[in-house]
Order: sequence, then structure tokens, then C-alpha cells
Amino acid sequence: MARAWNFNPGPATLPEEVLSRVQADLLDWQGKGLSVMEMSHRSEEFLGIAAKAERDLRQLAGIPENYKILFLQGGALGQNAFVPLNLLGDRTTADYVNTGHWSTKSINEAQKYGDVHIAASAESSGFTHVPAQSEWRLSQNPAYVHICSNETISGVEYAFTPETGDVPLVADMSSNILSRPFDITRFGLIYAGAQKNIGPSGVTLVVVREDLLGKARRDCPSVFDYTLQLKHEWMFNTPPTFPIYIAGLVFERLLALGGLAEVEKRNIAKAQKLYAEIDRTDFYKNKVCVADRSRMNATFYLPTEKLDDMFVAEAREHGLINLKGHKVAGGIRASVYNAMPMAGIDALVVFMRDFEKRNG
Amino acid sequence: MARAWNFNPGPATLPEEVLSRVQADLLDWQGKGLSVMEMSHRSEEFLGIAAKAERDLRQLAGIPENYKILFLQGGALGQNAFVPLNLLGDRTTADYVNTGHWSTKSINEAQKYGDVHIAASAESSGFTHVPAQSEWRLSQNPAYVHICSNETISGVEYAFTPETGDVPLVADMSSNILSRPFDITRFGLIYAGAQKNIGPSGVTLVVVREDLLGKARRDCPSVFDYTLQLKHEWMFNTPPTFPIYIAGLVFERLLALGGLAEVEKRNIAKAQKLYAEIDRTDFYKNKVCVADRSRMNATFYLPTEKLDDMFVAEAREHGLINLKGHKVAGGIRASVYNAMPMAGIDALVVFMRDFEKRNG
Repeated sequence: MARAWNFNPGPATLPEEVLSRVQADLLDWQGKGLSVMEMSHRSEEFLGIAAKAERDLRQLAGIPENYKILFLQGGALGQNAFVPLNLLGDRTTADYVNTGHWSTKSINEAQKYGDVHIAASAESSGFTHVPAQSEWRLSQNPAYVHICSNETISGVEYAFTPETGDVPLVADMSSNILSRPFDITRFGLIYAGAQKNIGPSGVTLVVVREDLLGKARRDCPSVFDYTLQLKHEWMFNTPPTFPIYIAGLVFERLLALGGLAEVEKRNIAKAQKLYAEIDRTDFYKNKVCVADRSRMNATFYLPTEKLDDMFVAEAREHGLINLKGHKVAGGIRASVYNAMPMAGIDALVVFMRDFEKRNG
Repeated sequence: MARAWNFNPGPATLPEEVLSRVQADLLDWQGKGLSVMEMSHRSEEFLGIAAKAERDLRQLAGIPENYKILFLQGGALGQNAFVPLNLLGDRTTADYVNTGHWSTKSINEAQKYGDVHIAASAESSGFTHVPAQSEWRLSQNPAYVHICSNETISGVEYAFTPETGDVPLVADMSSNILSRPFDITRFGLIYAGAQKNIGPSGVTLVVVREDLLGKARRDCPSVFDYTLQLKHEWMFNTPPTFPIYIAGLVFERLLALGGLAEVEKRNIAKAQKLYAEIDRTDFYKNKVCVADRSRMNATFYLPTEKLDDMFVAEAREHGLINLKGHKVAGGIRASVYNAMPMAGIDALVVFMRDFEKRNG
């Protein structure tokens, strides 16, 4: 079969031209006689690949030198532990904003390492909005404030960057990183699992402002001690070399497309077309506050659960795969990260119209 | 250039037929319209890949059902923290046998979480032997005894499985796992970074006897809590799907070759040929006690460091790459894991003879 339109929430679809380059070089990277998978992480070849990935990411996201870049393992859920272990220092409390499933996981994990103060929560709306900054109540002396910039399950995304003054802002950006320009200098630390907008699963990006380093607790596992890893240029242990190589190819592609401003333009156009179709009819219903709708994960519900299931099954037959909503939310979820082209949205919209005509 | 003979200590050479299969299916796995990298870890397709990998590994290594299999992240160096965090329970002490660089790292990390008793050490020989079991002195009530079954830097390997009675034996098997049959029932837990005999870097295998579960400390990061991960069938967080897929292809290949008995036969033949060449002449010198020589990493020294360097450089010109010894050991290291065929050993031996003829 031809390549499907893959609406997976992550691991997600990757740019076809990136996959083609990976395929071409799989047994013999640039005539060096070996696969990237077979390179020593300390070889000239891999160090070149890693340095280029880091350089391209800095350029792409405008990351200045006082922010350090790490490619680690363990996923964003791992960082839920490693952020407090690295940043709490001698503070006892960290503040968290709860916007849904992933924020809740971050909160639960952080409670193992310190006191968590909930600065704001969207629970009252069933996690269908982002609490306005005016409603946030920070604690006295928090080590940091943590947000999840996009919640994949309900499809809620921050449309603003919170202002937290001297308190470092920490963001789990797993599901919307590199989907729009962002000002890293407004953050103390960001992290992201790769498997949505960066590359395959198995690599986790951490970008940290250097003045926040040096505070890891003694019981922080060494391979996740940011300061120690940076001392070894994130090669204290063998990094996940192949996922990093693919992430580098993705960064290169995004630069070639014109950078994050152009990427955002495309994502806005994709999201507008998709939400316009949802809003066109009462047959499809999105529950999220319009201003906080995610550009990355559009969720919607048909009139009955039976129709939801039929929609997912018939879409699959039409080469539109993985549209089923998360089990805690139900309904439909179309994840349309950077690598989903407008043609995929068009195909989905055509199918939505046709399905409604037959079942509406 | 053609494929090189790659003597990397890890990430290491992979079987060419495995890489060819990965290449063929890279954009469209078995006609499903997407890459394995793009599959949801909870999709029927990936769950099938994962289940087959686990099943094949059980068959290959004879792992009974009361031993649980986990594919995690963080490498073996990560496990240096997660083993004590999961296994210490209410004990205060763990015993470690020190056979070199990697054992020392395990010991240093474990000291962050409990008391470490050194049951035996090869330090007196400069880590060129494995202490005989008769020299081991266990502590009163250790939670476990930890060994590193193959030390890649000096090239020292256990030729025996230690007998530790009721005390669970824990082994870092990163560099010799699946290179020979082993009796898992003699161990409480084994772990291995994938990047030598299993697959690409970024996935870590843990096999644990089920009665050792349920003891994780509260401060163990959730993604590395064996019990919690097993409750979620090692999908509490998104696993490194692509490296796991390749590991599965490697297991399948080893079964097709005839299993670990056949693999061992080949590894013995390869090691014998290589050490015979080293021993043939005083020009090459291996420092390891003969009985404890590693089948996986053969280390040797030429008469001068200058000749070592020339050897490495000229070998590279002949398509024999990554023969430089580790920086702490110097000299030459030929890592000849499962995926290195006899033809690679033959090519190295021919080069060694020729180099000696010209420089001896």
C-alpha cells in the first residue's frame, strides 16, 4: 500500500524526505562503510552528526549559548522525576499548573521529590481550557513553575507564554515544540520527548539555562544529572545515536523550509482548515475553549460512540489511520504535527464530509 | 566504499541482513503504509513486533515465565542507579565484585543509594583477571551480589557463573549477552545496554526474577520502577520503539542461526583465531590471564605506542575500522561481537601479519 495519512499522537508521522534519506544511507552512511547505528558515539562521524544537530536546533529555535542542550533518554515522563531532582536544590516547593492528563502525571511524580503547589488548574472545565495567567497563584518561594504547553489528550494548547518573573518557567513541550517560534529566554528549562515533532521515540530533548545547573541532588541518577552530562557533552553514557541522527535530519529540514515562522504559518493553516470543518456542522463537536484549541491535536466527537467507532474504522479503510481518541477521552483525535502535510488535512476533510453525508 | 570491518566496542557492527531488512521496510513496514518509527507503541502492529521480540528472546536464552523481561531506556549506566533503587528494599548493603572500569562505575553509583561491600577485586592485577570464586567474601546480609560479566576495556570475561546461594546474583551483561548460552536461573537479575550484541543504542534489556519485584524505593523514578513498568507491560512511557524492533530482528536471526549454542561455537572459533595470531609472535602482546580473556574484546599492544597508532591508522586504510584501544588502556582493541563474521577476523589476521612483516 502507499504511505498512509497517519494521525498518530506519537510516535507520529515523520517527513517522507527524512525517511528516504535514512533509507538511502542505512547500510553505508555517506560512503563511510557503516550505518549510523554502528558508529561509535565518540567517532568523528557521529560527533559531527551530533554537533550539526545541536547547531541546527540552536539556529532553528534561536537558542543562545547560555542555554545548554542535552539529548537524553527516558522520555518526558522520565523528566517528570529528573526536573525536580535537578532543579529543586535547597528549595522545598515547586509550583505546577494543571491543564490535564500530562500535567497531572508531572505533578504526581514531582510529589515524590518535594512539595507541589498547584498554582492553577483547569480541572473545573474538564480540562478544556488553559487557566488565564491572572488566575495563577504562585507559592512563596518556588524552585520553578511547571507547565505542559500542549495537552495531547483533550487537545488544549497554551496560546501565550506565561510571565513568571524571577521564578524559572519549566515547560514540558513534548507535543508542540518546534511547531511555532518561541522565546527560550522566557523559560528556565524546557524538555520534550522526540516522538511528535522531533524524531523517533527514544530521545528526549532538554534545554536548560546555565545558571540553573549545579543543583542536582545526590540521589539523582548520574545519567540524568544535567550538570554531569554537560560536563561530558551529553555523552556520560552512550546516547541514543540513531534517534538523534534522525532528529538532526528533521531540524535540517525545518530550517530548509524557512524556519519556525514558516512552520507556524503552515500549522495555522492546517488547524484552521480542520477546525473550520469541525465547526461547519453540529455533526462534529470539539469541546475545547476556542482560544485554547491545540494546533497539534484536534479532538472531536460524533453524535454517538457508535458513530465515533464507525468513523475510525472507515477512515482506516480510506488510508487515514490512527484517528481514535485517547481511551480517557474517547471520540476522535487527529494529531497533525509538523510532518503532516496539508494534503493529509485535505484528505481528512473530504472523508469527514463524505462520512457526514452518509451518516448525518 | 563497501561495508567496512567495524571493530567498534559499541555501538557496534550489526548483521548486514538485519540492516537490509530495516532498509527495505523503512518507509512502509510490511505494506502497512508507515515506518516502524511512526507506529504508535500501542498499535496492533508494534505490539506484535514487541511480543515477537520478547518471545524470541525467551526462546533464544531459555528464559522461563517467572523471569520478567523489560525493554527500558537509560543504558546500563542508568541501571547502575536503578538496580539498587529497585532491589535494595529494606536491606542496607549490596555486594559488588570489581573487575575493572565498568564494575567501578557500578560501584560508585550504587554508593549513592546504599552501602557497598566489595566482595572481591581484581585491582591488584591491574584488572587483567577475574577473581576466583574461592576468594570472594560476601557480607552478612547483602541485597544482591553484582558482577560485570565482560569488561570491554581490558578485555576480561567471566568463564564461570558464580554461585551465590540465596543471595541474588545481578549481572551487567551488556557486552557479552547472547554470545553464549547462559542459565538465567542462576541469576536474580541481568541487564544489558543493547549496543553490542542486541541492536542500536537507546534500549536497555532487564530480565528480573519475579520474586525480586515490588521493592522499589519511593524515590525511584517511575519510568525505571520495574514493578510499575511490568504492570504496564513496559509501556508506562513510550518505549524506544525503533531500537526494540531492530533488537527483535537480531533475536530472530540468532534463532535462525541455530541459537546460542551455535553462536558460542562461532564466537569461540573467532576468538581462538584472533588470540592465536596475538600469541604467535611477541610483536603483539595481550596482558589478560589466559583463562579470563574476553571472547568479545581482544586487547593487544605493539612494542611502542607509535606502532599502536600506525597500526590503527593503516588498518583504517585497509577497511578495518575502530581498532583503537580505550583511552584508559591504550593499545589496540578488536571488538568482535556476534555480528562480526569470521571473514572480518580473517581480514584482521591478514593485516596483522602484513603489518608485523613491515614493522616487526
